[in-house]
Amino acid sequence: MELDTTPALLVDRDVLDHNIARLAQSAQSRSLSLRPHAKTHKCLEIARHQLDAGACGLTVATVSEAEVFAEAGFEDLFVAYPLWVDAARGARLRTLADRCRLTVGIDSPSGARQLVEHAGTAIGVLVEIDSGHHRTGVRPEQAGTVASAAHDAGLEVRGVFTFPGHSYAPDGPHRAARDEADALTAAADSLRTAGIEPAVISGGSSPTALVDLPTPATELRPGVYVFGDAQQLELGVVTEADIALTVLATVVSARDETVVLDAGSKVLGADRATWATGYGRILGEPAARITALSEHHATVQWPNPTTRPDLGARVQVIPNHACNAVNLANELVAVSGNVVVERWEVAARGCNT
Amino acid sequence: MELDTTPALLVDRDVLDHNIARLAQSAQSRSLSLRPHAKTHKCLEIARHQLDAGACGLTVATVSEAEVFAEAGFEDLFVAYPLWVDAARGARLRTLADRCRLTVGIDSPSGARQLVEHAGTAIGVLVEIDSGHHRTGVRPEQAGTVASAAHDAGLEVRGVFTFPGHSYAPDGPHRAARDEADALTAAADSLRTAGIEPAVISGGSSPTALVDLPTPATELRPGVYVFGDAQQLELGVVTEADIALTVLATVVSARDETVVLDAGSKVLGADRATWATGYGRILGEPAARITALSEHHATVQWPNPTTRPDLGARVQVIPNHACNAVNLANELVAVSGNVVVERWEVAARGCNT
Repeated sequence: MELDTTPALLVDRDVLDHNIARLAQSAQSRSLSLRPHAKTHKCLEIARHQLDAGACGLTVATVSEAEVFAEAGFEDLFVAYPLWVDAARGARLRTLADRCRLTVGIDSPSGARQLVEHAGTAIGVLVEIDSGHHRTGVRPEQAGTVASAAHDAGLEVRGVFTFPGHSYAPDGPHRAARDEADALTAAADSLRTAGIEPAVISGGSSPTALVDLPTPATELRPGVYVFGDAQQLELGVVTEADIALTVLATVVSARDETVVLDAGSKVLGADRATWATGYGRILGEPAARITALSEHHATVQWPNPTTRPDLGARVQVIPNHACNAVNLANELVAVSGNVVVERWEVAARGCNT
Repeated sequence: MELDTTPALLVDRDVLDHNIARLAQSAQSRSLSLRPHAKTHKCLEIARHQLDAGACGLTVATVSEAEVFAEAGFEDLFVAYPLWVDAARGARLRTLADRCRLTVGIDSPSGARQLVEHAGTAIGVLVEIDSGHHRTGVRPEQAGTVASAAHDAGLEVRGVFTFPGHSYAPDGPHRAARDEADALTAAADSLRTAGIEPAVISGGSSPTALVDLPTPATELRPGVYVFGDAQQLELGVVTEADIALTVLATVVSARDETVVLDAGSKVLGADRATWATGYGRILGEPAARITALSEHHATVQWPNPTTRPDLGARVQVIPNHACNAVNLANELVAVSGNVVVERWEVAARGCNT
C-alpha cells in the first residue's frame, strides 16, 4: 500500500460496493424502502452511492448531520432522534425544511409542542417507539397518544419508527427482529385507532436488516452494513469477506507473544461490548486478540509465531464499532486491492448538535 | 448558561486554574520538573497556562501533535511513544527538530537505528521501560542495552521514561507509584552500567502524580490532572470539586426513573474500565448512573425523584476519560460560574500520526 503513514482508515471499495448492492437488492426483493443511516460513514460520496443503488433518502442522527447532507444537495432526510427543540435548534430546522423534505423523531407530546413552537409545522414527524432496546421511544400502544398530540399541534404525522438496538447481543438479531415486527404492528394499530394512517413504518438495524421475517415495516434504516465491523463479525451477521473498513496500523513494539500497534482508542474508538472478545479484530488473523487499548496503543496477543508481525510491519485492524472509528477520522482512504483509488472527507465528522 | 445548543464541552476555568497551580506547586516542592501531557487538552491556551505555571515543556503522544505545538511556538517537546520511524515520518521529525528541542521515545535497538536512518541524530531519546503496565517499554534491566544501541547509532540518550498505567485500578495509584520508583531506579542503574548517565528520569500519570514516595524521578508527565474525569473520581484521586471538564447535555427523553441525554459515545467517548460504575457521572448527582451509551444517547438511572430533571432540562456529565472526550470536540467552552468567558480550539484534535 503506497500510504505514507499510519494509522489510516481504509475502505475497501469493492467490498463496500458489494455491501451496498446486496442490501439494496434484499430490501427491493422484500418491497422495503431503504433509508441508510449516514451516521456510520458521514461521507457524501458513500451516501451518493447508496442513493444511486436505490435508497429513498438518508437517515441522520443530529440536526448538524442533516445540515451537512442538505448543504450537499440531499433532498430527503430523516433525523431518527427525539429532538428537544429550543429556539436555536428550531431556527436551524426551519432553514433545513426550506432546503429538503425533512422528518424528525418525537417521543413525547411536549417534544411535539416544542417542535411546533420553535420550528413550525413544515416538518414531518415519526413517533419513536421502544421495541425492546429500552432507550428512547414510547411503548408501542402509546404511539397513538403521542401521534394525536403532534397532530393536534399541527404536525404531519408520517408514521412510526424504532431502533431494535437489542439486536447487538449474541442471541440478538433474530429475537430483536421479531420484537421489532411485533412492536411496529402494535404501534401502527395504535396510530390507526387514533385516526392516523401511518405512511411510514420504519425499523431496522444492521444485525436485523437481512433477517427475513414477516413485518409491517415499510422502511429499513441500517447504517453499519456498508462497512461491517468486529461487532457484526462476532455477532455472526457478516464474515471477514464483508469487512470494508479497517485501520492500517504499524507494529511499534513487540515482546514474546505480544505486539503493540499504533492505533488506539483515539483511532478505533473505545467501544467494547460485554460479549466482545477484545477491542477489535485483526484482518486475516482470527486467533489474535486486542486485549488492551490505550489512546495510541493496541496491545495484541498474537499466538501464531509464523504469522506474528515484526517491528515496523503493517497490519489491518477491524474496529469494534465502525461508526465511532469513522467519526475520529478526517478522511477515508478508498482502496481497491492494494491501490489507493480515492480519498473521501468525513464531511459530518463531529456533527453532534 | 447562555449556550445555544447541546452537547457542548465546558471547562470550568477556575477549577482548571486551581488544578494547574496545585500540581505545579506539588512538583516544585519535590524538586520535580513537570512536563504535562498535552494529549489530554490538545489546546494551545491550556498548554501556555501550564508553561506559565512553571512546566519545563510539553509531552505529546504523536508526531502530528508535536507539529501543532511546535508550529504554535512551543520549544521543548517530548513524544512519549516508541516511534517506528520510516522515511515519511523521518522527514517530519527532521523539520520538527529544526524548530524545537525534540526528544522521542525508543524501546528497541532496531527502533533506534530506524530513527537515525530516517531522521538523523539531532533528536534526543529516552528509553521506555515497563514499570508494570505491560504495554510498551523494555524491562528496566534491559534499558542499558537499548541505550547503548541508540548511543552507538549516534543518538543522544537523555535518559529513561515509563508510564505506570496500572495506576488505573481501584488499588492502583500507590502500588503503581511504588512499582514506578523501583523500575526507574533499576533502569537508571542499567544505563549507568552501560556508561550513560541519565539526565532525565521521567515518570508519572495523573493517579500517581500526587503520591509522595521516594523516587529517582526528575520529571512528571501527568495529563488528565488539568481536568479530572470520572475515572479519577472513582479511583479516589480527585473529588467532584476538582472536576474542570463536563459535557453540557439536554434531557431528550424520560420514563420512570430513566432520563436520556443527548450526549453519547460520539461526545463522551466509549471508555468504560471494568471497575467503572457507568459511562460517566452526573455532576452534583452522585447516585445517578449512566447505564448505557449509544452514539448520541446517555441512558441515566436517576433514583432521586426530587432532583430528576424534566424533558428539556440541562445537566452536566463528567466523562469517564477526559482525553477521549476532548478529542471528539472541535472546541472547549471556558466558563466561570455560569458565564462563558472564552472558547478554545482543540487545536490538535485527531492528530494521530
